[in-house]
Order: sequence, then structure tokens, then C-alpha cells
Amino acid sequence: MASALQIDRLLVIGVGLIGGSVALALKAAGVVREIVGAGRSVENLEKAVQLGVVDRFTQNFAEEVSTSTVILISTPVLSTDAIIRKIADEDYHNALITDAGSVKGGIVESAERYLSADYRGFVAAHPIAGREHSGVTAASADLYQGKRTIVTPSRQSGPRAIEFVKQFWCATGARVSEMDAATHDELVSASSHLPHLVAFGLVNYIANHARGKECFDLAAAGFYDFTRIASSDPTMWRDISLANAAAVTRELRGYIANLESIAEKISNGEGDSLKEVMDIAKVSRDFYLDRWMK
Amino acid sequence: MASALQIDRLLVIGVGLIGGSVALALKAAGVVREIVGAGRSVENLEKAVQLGVVDRFTQNFAEEVSTSTVILISTPVLSTDAIIRKIADEDYHNALITDAGSVKGGIVESAERYLSADYRGFVAAHPIAGREHSGVTAASADLYQGKRTIVTPSRQSGPRAIEFVKQFWCATGARVSEMDAATHDELVSASSHLPHLVAFGLVNYIANHARGKECFDLAAAGFYDFTRIASSDPTMWRDISLANAAAVTRELRGYIANLESIAEKISNGEGDSLKEVMDIAKVSRDFYLDRWMK
Repeated sequence: MASALQIDRLLVIGVGLIGGSVALALKAAGVVREIVGAGRSVENLEKAVQLGVVDRFTQNFAEEVSTSTVILISTPVLSTDAIIRKIADEDYHNALITDAGSVKGGIVESAERYLSADYRGFVAAHPIAGREHSGVTAASADLYQGKRTIVTPSRQSGPRAIEFVKQFWCATGARVSEMDAATHDELVSASSHLPHLVAFGLVNYIANHARGKECFDLAAAGFYDFTRIASSDPTMWRDISLANAAAVTRELRGYIANLESIAEKISNGEGDSLKEVMDIAKVSRDFYLDRWMK
Repeated sequence: MASALQIDRLLVIGVGLIGGSVALALKAAGVVREIVGAGRSVENLEKAVQLGVVDRFTQNFAEEVSTSTVILISTPVLSTDAIIRKIADEDYHNALITDAGSVKGGIVESAERYLSADYRGFVAAHPIAGREHSGVTAASADLYQGKRTIVTPSRQSGPRAIEFVKQFWCATGARVSEMDAATHDELVSASSHLPHLVAFGLVNYIANHARGKECFDLAAAGFYDFTRIASSDPTMWRDISLANAAAVTRELRGYIANLESIAEKISNGEGDSLKEVMDIAKVSRDFYLDRWMK
């Protein structure tokens, strides 16, 4: 069925790493006739045309809504509410709307707030992939190849829209599955948002350390791998953290308690119990890495 | 001068990733006539001979002390005290002693406690490299190539011994510099020990999470890169944490305070101040990564 996917016009609102990579992947798959990029920065949009990521661009996406087959919202998550409100002022009923945000609860609420109750074309999604470089110049057709994408159907997602949006994400090369928005947000707060905050926090801590410069000079390859995700886009991650604030702070506090217990064990010289923490970590990671690599 | 280095017999106490990689590097450099491996596990030592890491082995290193040119202690750091005490019972005066531990204060104290006050052949060292796989099968001749090694001279380090031990580590391919043991232990507690504990703690936290299995299933490539160091050897890292307990717990607590402030900002919706934390992290990492790559 995926081969049947045909999109006449795709409107990509926010042409950065995420939206740009979706555009490139769908072009490579040959499933879209025209891609229109929308955003605020003319410079970035011109770059997107130059790079062949989009066919043309607009700074006023509203005027493209009524003639688009699919609208992809791929901006930092705190800006999606205003975008959906603006879409709602246009004739959007012939378009399918999806997004690529890392938090799903907020955008589902925005859709229910602004889009009509009988609209069945909204299917939120989260492609789980990224890299530490941001912007359209970092976009690539294979960013989602083999990676997971979660679609989170809601009341405004009709069966045909769900099927179409799944095919849309399949065409980027992703492995697509379904989950409700609340479950999604709870799980990614631990599996993705927490690690990013832990990494941002660690590098920030060293940067503010009295001997930070010497510490960075001594850091080995492990440190740079470990902190790769701390080079992710700060605006994107600020938005994700605030959009998923309740779950993220709960996970942060759970993790802080875990670190405190490690500090206690070290401070009390409880070697066996400290080693057990490390054993559980190593065994779990090796086990899941093994599965994940398959 | 490095080319002048000639070692008649190298005794490697602890033939795992670290000691095995030193042995392979020195063999490749052609600077050692014979390498004797010492350890507890016959199976591991036989494997080391099979792999060409050592020429022969002993389970009783004491009988090799008097005829060794250089003794390298490369065991988990909490076992080094007993090893130095045992070396001190033998005729070690013609041998140079160095080590490869990640904490230097303890071994310098052990040397001062057990080796004679007029001995000038002890020069502690820390080759800053590792990988998540452990054991002699993970050893490789290029583990230290281009990496930093810190030597931490102490009262029992004579000028000739310092020069010789520097050449020894240079011959592994490392870039060698000097630091006092206390400064070393303080800096690595932040640049290396803290990140390892943060990673072990994070994976342990997810493993113990009510929805841990689902979280691991959702984790992306970033998570596995981020937690690579949580697959390091638990015994080695338990020992390092306990041997550097004061500095490590101080850094852990400093970092916990940093995470708590991040949780506060998220909880209070302080977006600007949260983004500033992330900006500082990103800018610092990108700056130092750039320098480090050169």
C-alpha cells in the first residue's frame, strides 16, 4: 500500500533539520509532486530551495493551506499552538495535518481547541531521530531510515487519515507504530528528554566549574560521545522540556534521587551495593543494545 | 630520545584491556624484549599468550620482581595497595614501577608507605583512554595512540625515572604531560568520574523504572551513544569511585544541584533561563570539541 502514496502538494512549516529531512526523504521516495517550504527566515528558505529540499517557499503559510494535500508542522513545539490556530482560520478541510514534534499532548489539545470537531484529518506524529547539528543544511534523506516513528491518533484522526499519515511516515523510511499521546509523552520523558537534560546539565556544570577549562582539556573521547546530545538545538529542547514539564520534572527528580543514592554509597564506602548499581546498568544496556542493533 | 627506550623485561600485573593494550603498543614499537603477564585467572593469562599480548605468564608476580626492568600495575585501583605491599617484600630496587590507574592519590600513598624512602623508581601514570569492552580480548595496540597520558611524579620519582617512564608512555603512542597527583584526581573527578557515574546512574534509573522496558524500546541512537560509558567495567569503576570518594561525591553533589536548578526552571516555566543553560552547554561543547579534534 505504501507504494500507492501520492501527495500532490506538501506544505512544510519549519524547514530545519527535521522538516528538511522529511522533505528530502519523500522526494527521494518519489511520492510528492511539489513541496512548499514555509518559515520566517528568507535566508533559510532560499537555502532550502538551493539545496533542493523544497521547490518553492512562502513566508505566509496561511495562503497555502487550502491548496495543500498534506501540511507538516516541524517547528519547535511551543510554536505549534499558534500555527494550528492560524491554520484553523483557513480552509484546511481538504488537507491532512501531521507534525514532527517530540511532545504530543500539547499539539493534540491545540488541534481540539482550534480545528473543527468533525475534522478527521489531524494525526500527530513523532519521528524518533535527530542529530546534534540543526538547520536545513543538516537535513538528509536518510535521517529516518530504519528509525521509529510514533503516530498518536486522537479524536480528530479518522481511519483513512491514520492510514495515510502512517504511509507518509513509512515513505521516509521509518518503522511506524501507534501509541496514545499521553503514553508517548510519559515514555519519551524518560527515554529521550531526561538524557538530553542530563547531558545539557553536565556540560553546563563543567563549563561553570572553577576548573572547567582544565576539565575540558583532560576530557577523553568518552566525554565527547557522552555529551554529543548536549550539542542539540537549545530552542528545540527548551520547548520540549516546557511542553512536557510535568513528566520531565518528575523524571529529573527520580533520577536525582538515584544519583543521591550513588553519592551516599560512595561516601559510605558501600562497594558491593555501588557495584550492583553499575552491574544493572551495564547488563541492561548491553542487553537492549544487542536487541536494538538487530 | 624516545627511540633510545629499551626495556629488557616488562612485568604487567593485570592483563586486561588497559595492561594488554600497553603490552601490544610497546611490542608494536619494538622497545621491549620480553613481556611477562601476571594475574589470578589462568584462563585469561593463557588467552593473553595466545593473542600475543604477553610472552609468558605467572600467577605469582613476586618471583618476577627482582628481574624486571619495568613493572606496570594495571589492575582495578583498589587492589594496587596490596600489590605494592607485596612488591615491597621483594628486591625491587633495579626496577622502575609505574601504573595505569585512573586515581593517583592512593597509589602514591601506598608507594610512600611500603617502598623505601630512598627509592626513586616509582612514577605513577594515568593513560586517559578506554572503551566499553573490557578484558584482554578487547586490548589493542592503538588504544593510546594520540591520547593523553598524565604522569604524576611524587617524592619517590627521581629525574631519570620520570624521563624513562615518560618515554615508556610515549612509546604507546600517547601524548604525555605532568601533573601532581592531587590536581589530577580533582580534575578527573569532574571530567571523567562524574560522567561515568551519571551514565551508570541513568541506565540504572531507566532499568528500575516502572515502564523501563518500554523506555528502552523507544530509545534512539542518541541514548545508546550517550550511555556507552555505562557499559564500562563495573569493578573498575566501583574502585575508581571509592578511591577518589571525596572528590567524586563533591562533584556528584555539585552536579545534582545543577540538575535541581534545571528542574526548577522547567517547573516554573522559566524558558529564557533554561535556554541559557542549554546555550552555555552547546557553545562550550562545540568549542572544546573543535579544539580537541585538531
